[in-house]
Amino acid sequence: MRIMGIDPGIAIVGYGILDQKGTRLIDVDYGSIQTLAGIPTATRLKQIYDACTRLFGEFQPDVVAIEKLFFNRNVTTAFTVGQARGVIMLAAEEANITITEYTPLQVKMAVVGFGQAEKKQVQEMVKLLLHLPAVPRPDDVADALAIAICEAHSSSAVHKYSKWGLKR
Amino acid sequence: MRIMGIDPGIAIVGYGILDQKGTRLIDVDYGSIQTLAGIPTATRLKQIYDACTRLFGEFQPDVVAIEKLFFNRNVTTAFTVGQARGVIMLAAEEANITITEYTPLQVKMAVVGFGQAEKKQVQEMVKLLLHLPAVPRPDDVADALAIAICEAHSSSAVHKYSKWGLKR
Repeated sequence: MRIMGIDPGIAIVGYGILDQKGTRLIDVDYGSIQTLAGIPTATRLKQIYDACTRLFGEFQPDVVAIEKLFFNRNVTTAFTVGQARGVIMLAAEEANITITEYTPLQVKMAVVGFGQAEKKQVQEMVKLLLHLPAVPRPDDVADALAIAICEAHSSSAVHKYSKWGLKR
Repeated sequence: MRIMGIDPGIAIVGYGILDQKGTRLIDVDYGSIQTLAGIPTATRLKQIYDACTRLFGEFQPDVVAIEKLFFNRNVTTAFTVGQARGVIMLAAEEANITITEYTPLQVKMAVVGFGQAEKKQVQEMVKLLLHLPAVPRPDDVADALAIAICEAHSSSAVHKYSKWGLKR
């Protein structure tokens, strides 16, 4: 099972790709798509869309997990991030990849174990869980890996339940 | 000069296409792209993107004018509308169409003449200015035509200034 976590944004889109083998998580690739502030929004959206299409084609993830909503941010930010998220979801849909969505709270719960976790704690857990030499930079990359871990933990939960004969 | 106004949304995207000939505005086509609530967001975004791509190809607008921000709505709405707006802008960018953006305030100022205008007043002015038999429905279509009129008035302002030798 190959999972790609994405932290959407107009300036920086973080991504993190993991292979889930049983209980093990192996990092395949992680990085960011960055666009320049001076160019038109539509051009930046196309750059993000094109880069996602290339990444989906190259790494062939089974599932793309993407952050759901930013409760703590303002309307303008939500609008801008929403635009970027729209073209990322379109690229995933066109590549026939399953899309899952998690709130920041769900990500914190899955990675650290409690919803009040600080950003720094989430990042340290990402480093530990994936045996990385350092916390990936910028923050958006570590966040994307945290979303991928969240998806991995959620899908192993499904797997665990199904062993007990529960239907979902 | 052919102008296409767009009022973005995830359930309904209103569009209105006008030809500007001198001071005259002629309605070419108007309508809406509608997606169903029960299907996944990514599928709805692809339907919007595909429909816009078809409309841009069929009507070949010189400029696409699109509503900019929803100051009076909440974060969740802004996020959802932002997603739809992202794929619409991507489709316009891929079709090499100029994109202009107007706030609801600018649209009201351009169509009715004052920013405190009621939605109903804007719609009546759209009907009058375009000599339509009735206000187009749903509201999103009338709004899209209002945005197109806003673009027409803004670009004629540029034209007027240039007659007076002003550079812009």
